[in-house]
Amino acid sequence: MIEDKNQQRTELSQLGEFGLIDHLSKNFEVKQQSTIKTIGDDAAVLEFKDKRVVVTTDFLVEGVHFDLSYMPLKHLGYKAVIVNLSDVYAMNAEATQVTVSIAVSNRFPLEAIEELYAGIQTACKLYNVDLVGGDTTSSTSGLIISVTAIGQVDKDKEVYRSGAKPNDLLVVSGDIGGAYLGLQVLEREKEVFKVNPNNQPDLEAYTYIIERQLKPEARKDVIKLLQDLDVKPTSMIDISDGLSSEILHLCKHSKVGCDLYENKLPLDPQVISTCEEFNLDSTTIALNGGEDYELLMTVSQEDFPKIKANPNLTVIGYITEENAGAHLVTRADQKIKLTAQGWNSFDKD
Amino acid sequence: MIEDKNQQRTELSQLGEFGLIDHLSKNFEVKQQSTIKTIGDDAAVLEFKDKRVVVTTDFLVEGVHFDLSYMPLKHLGYKAVIVNLSDVYAMNAEATQVTVSIAVSNRFPLEAIEELYAGIQTACKLYNVDLVGGDTTSSTSGLIISVTAIGQVDKDKEVYRSGAKPNDLLVVSGDIGGAYLGLQVLEREKEVFKVNPNNQPDLEAYTYIIERQLKPEARKDVIKLLQDLDVKPTSMIDISDGLSSEILHLCKHSKVGCDLYENKLPLDPQVISTCEEFNLDSTTIALNGGEDYELLMTVSQEDFPKIKANPNLTVIGYITEENAGAHLVTRADQKIKLTAQGWNSFDKD
Repeated sequence: MIEDKNQQRTELSQLGEFGLIDHLSKNFEVKQQSTIKTIGDDAAVLEFKDKRVVVTTDFLVEGVHFDLSYMPLKHLGYKAVIVNLSDVYAMNAEATQVTVSIAVSNRFPLEAIEELYAGIQTACKLYNVDLVGGDTTSSTSGLIISVTAIGQVDKDKEVYRSGAKPNDLLVVSGDIGGAYLGLQVLEREKEVFKVNPNNQPDLEAYTYIIERQLKPEARKDVIKLLQDLDVKPTSMIDISDGLSSEILHLCKHSKVGCDLYENKLPLDPQVISTCEEFNLDSTTIALNGGEDYELLMTVSQEDFPKIKANPNLTVIGYITEENAGAHLVTRADQKIKLTAQGWNSFDKD
Repeated sequence: MIEDKNQQRTELSQLGEFGLIDHLSKNFEVKQQSTIKTIGDDAAVLEFKDKRVVVTTDFLVEGVHFDLSYMPLKHLGYKAVIVNLSDVYAMNAEATQVTVSIAVSNRFPLEAIEELYAGIQTACKLYNVDLVGGDTTSSTSGLIISVTAIGQVDKDKEVYRSGAKPNDLLVVSGDIGGAYLGLQVLEREKEVFKVNPNNQPDLEAYTYIIERQLKPEARKDVIKLLQDLDVKPTSMIDISDGLSSEILHLCKHSKVGCDLYENKLPLDPQVISTCEEFNLDSTTIALNGGEDYELLMTVSQEDFPKIKANPNLTVIGYITEENAGAHLVTRADQKIKLTAQGWNSFDKD
């Protein structure tokens, strides 16, 4: 798509690095009170007063984390911001600023980078975060994006991975497995396209799961909801690598075990139907498919009345003593040891 | 060097992403009071109380910003941190934390990445900053490093690029041009090595300029000095792209002009002798050679008595009205318009 010969093509070298940063950031508005000085100096200046500051950073590498043959650049820019905001929300914090650095090879014209930044801008606007810094440079191959997200949280309101206690409820927001299945559909369509470029795919049956993959959202709304319900989770993590892997992180950091109930896993009907079509086990997908960017948390039993009727939150298990281990309790009431098959970029090659 | 067959070689995939982060960060100590929670959760948690926060980020890309054939990985790790701290100091702030993300191809064994992190750790220790986050992932080619540095500054003590006023003095720390010349020497030795791999280069005459290139320092000491002298510069920037380019940034942001005096440029004797050897004009090198990471600032005339005897600071010119333009006043008392020939990574190839 980005190599379409009919599109306008402005070489990046025409602008140079300073021109490029100025050009790309000129349409971004500053919204946060904490942003004192944004792009244009050696560093941004921020002021958080009596709030604590959270900082997180993530790399997205072409050919490892994304494939531009089905990932539009605008969506990619959006997603690059979202995956970082998700880490901020997982601390029970409010996201306030991001910095975005890109390394691009000469095969990308200015117009492609503008598309990428259009997606970044959409995410910033929707999530009310300011773009306050970044770096643009050339790369010898492909596109690499590095985002750092900053947020604020009242002192002692932050939630770590380490606070889960035996008998706490294990709770997940939204539904899971969709993003991974969306990727499977896109990979299949890519193969079909290679064989028959004139084929027009009908993706009607997969709109939800494809959106979960291409345009994920971070659960800012869930952080707000928890605040409104007056619930402070005892521990929290976002689901980027797969439910199973994230549960094991919480258990390890909190020194606890858990029982996860297979029949409680929240699955969208499209996840179930697509699993059947692909002959995949939906529980395996829910446990190991990543990139859903839902929040996994543990909540004290006494908060159960506050969350039980909420359609955004599902109780999927409970925390046990550490020596009990972490298990999946199947529909047949069998206990299976949970293992992490989360994604490891170093395994690819 | 890193592909020496005799070295121990542990594949990164043996550790996986989580194992790698834990392994690499386990020897880093937390020193800053503002670091509440470091690596190991979704985000770091920091607390700056009534201080303002500065944030800056930079990419270093193999084949664009560094060449591993003469840049040892330990030095590279050190430099990656330094170039970011330099931006923090250029705000008149104190550097407190960094996050470091790396994307590496499979050609790097664990031992190579440990070398890189040894350099990062040395820089963190020496500059008293905490490593509080990062990401490790695979890349399809080469090594890419993204560092974000965070600092703190008392409210209204931060110094921007935009505060220079006519009649202010233009001041630079240390000496300039060395880092660029060091690179020229290293590039020449690389070519010699290609022709005759048994040649043992004698680099005795270039120790200072090679160190400027391979192991630059950020001027934390100058920020401390300014504080001790009770001098708040009216504007400041660090010299990463070349003196000329940085002066033009200050002039543009401050809406002023300047006269820069050729005979005031601070040059190390090794810079002068190496320029002669390479048949280069030392003024051109001082103006356009980058990566010295010295601080360029403007200081009010009334502060002149405080700085004039200081060996770390050289007055190289003064600020004029904007419509006077930015000029170099040569030894022959000619005025030449200053132009930026600073480095642009998109021009390469």
